[in-house]
Amino acid sequence: MIIVGERINSTRKTVQPAMETRDEAFLVREATAQWSAGSDYLDVNTATLLDGEPACMAWAVRLIQEAIPAALISIDSPNVQALEAGLQAHRGRAMLNSITGEAGRIAEVLPLVREFRPRVVVLTMDDEGLHRDPEKRFAIGASLIERLAREGISAADVFVDPLVFPVSAEADAGVTALDIMDKLKLAFPGVHTICGVSNVSYGLPVRKLVNQVYMILAMSRGLDAAIIDPLDARMMVNIVAARTLLGLDPGCRGYLAAYREGRLGLDVPASAGGRA
Amino acid sequence: MIIVGERINSTRKTVQPAMETRDEAFLVREATAQWSAGSDYLDVNTATLLDGEPACMAWAVRLIQEAIPAALISIDSPNVQALEAGLQAHRGRAMLNSITGEAGRIAEVLPLVREFRPRVVVLTMDDEGLHRDPEKRFAIGASLIERLAREGISAADVFVDPLVFPVSAEADAGVTALDIMDKLKLAFPGVHTICGVSNVSYGLPVRKLVNQVYMILAMSRGLDAAIIDPLDARMMVNIVAARTLLGLDPGCRGYLAAYREGRLGLDVPASAGGRA
Repeated sequence: MIIVGERINSTRKTVQPAMETRDEAFLVREATAQWSAGSDYLDVNTATLLDGEPACMAWAVRLIQEAIPAALISIDSPNVQALEAGLQAHRGRAMLNSITGEAGRIAEVLPLVREFRPRVVVLTMDDEGLHRDPEKRFAIGASLIERLAREGISAADVFVDPLVFPVSAEADAGVTALDIMDKLKLAFPGVHTICGVSNVSYGLPVRKLVNQVYMILAMSRGLDAAIIDPLDARMMVNIVAARTLLGLDPGCRGYLAAYREGRLGLDVPASAGGRA
Repeated sequence: MIIVGERINSTRKTVQPAMETRDEAFLVREATAQWSAGSDYLDVNTATLLDGEPACMAWAVRLIQEAIPAALISIDSPNVQALEAGLQAHRGRAMLNSITGEAGRIAEVLPLVREFRPRVVVLTMDDEGLHRDPEKRFAIGASLIERLAREGISAADVFVDPLVFPVSAEADAGVTALDIMDKLKLAFPGVHTICGVSNVSYGLPVRKLVNQVYMILAMSRGLDAAIIDPLDARMMVNIVAARTLLGLDPGCRGYLAAYREGRLGLDVPASAGGRA
């Protein structure tokens, strides 16, 4: 399971001012906590900075990689200049978040894909917006996997997000997204799936619980990557247990290591254990 | 999801003396707590009472159904006299726990099936004992479903347990059991599956966590019934959330009712909410 830590997002009310004032301590603290808790990528979304986005993205990427040399960034923006600035600043192979089926977005993003060869998140929406119809979402994903293959990006470096709708609006929304993932993985061996889990709980109380349980359901269907809050200790220990139960943890080594490091004791903060 | 509350089991060290001394208050308390927490059946296992089993089983079944008129019992014993005494004492349709592929057990239990027409738990083991080989477990389950059908017990009244092995001994043990369930449900439409979840975590630390996560994985594959501790509040709220996420809770009515009743607040004991 590839964990993409979601907390450095300018739509969070503590993050935007920290980005505007270039609060290094705040950003390094958020990055370090998420990295220590087991993130594989740290998402940086600068969307609300508007004109200031590209400069802020470059600053954030550089700052985080200076503080945590091994960290990789998911460069997340609707603004192609911000994507470019982030990719330029990034050392190692970044994740570009994201390309969609919108004609304008494809035209803007493909040159960056060619130049920087990042891993790429694919959102299954297009010029008509979001689609409830799973066939349409599958078709958009399929078409972008093929398009990226023509640019030399292998299926294994593509992360398709089936776009989970809230179950509060549509009872089958959670299952539908899992079905789309299944179908994509069957049609494109080696392709990765990714999921912004928290959308599924929109409109419900105790959203954390719903997100935690959906994560396990998605893992049971082969989800490869998730954009989540790695400081949710319950979420993280559930993932450890699910890997073991799904036969992905030979000898229960990962589970037992988490136990020895105190990470399964749910009263300690997630950041007290995990990767240093 | 059919919840079979597992706590009234004579192998638990507080339960055996209570059974021996016919401690009514203790038994009613255990029964009421599990029923209030959302059990559909209360398992009563008297195995360690030995010669005293049949009388104790009849006493327990009567006592519980007097205290909770709506309660149904899963009558659970290796001793056929105890099964018979329990079925005799039971009002309404009991669950007989269990029949196996052992020739002697089949010969003993089928007459009770004919006489009392209970729902029947099938354990996928036989005269050779437990089988690691999933094909053998499937074959035992299939053969017993067919045998019970010839006695007039429909597939829907049969609950097949694929017998989960510990993941600590075999990395694929959890997935293997789920695969057997899938195959049985496909081969015998309408048949129910049941699972004693806790065996999967044998030999691991923080077993509750492993059991809670396995329950969700099993639900994602269509598990119908589970033998669990309904006083594990986290287990129960996970089940509520999983039902909603699997599209089994139209309008999220069950989830929202649990929220209003305070059952999703994980700091309150499970018995503080739920069915009265």
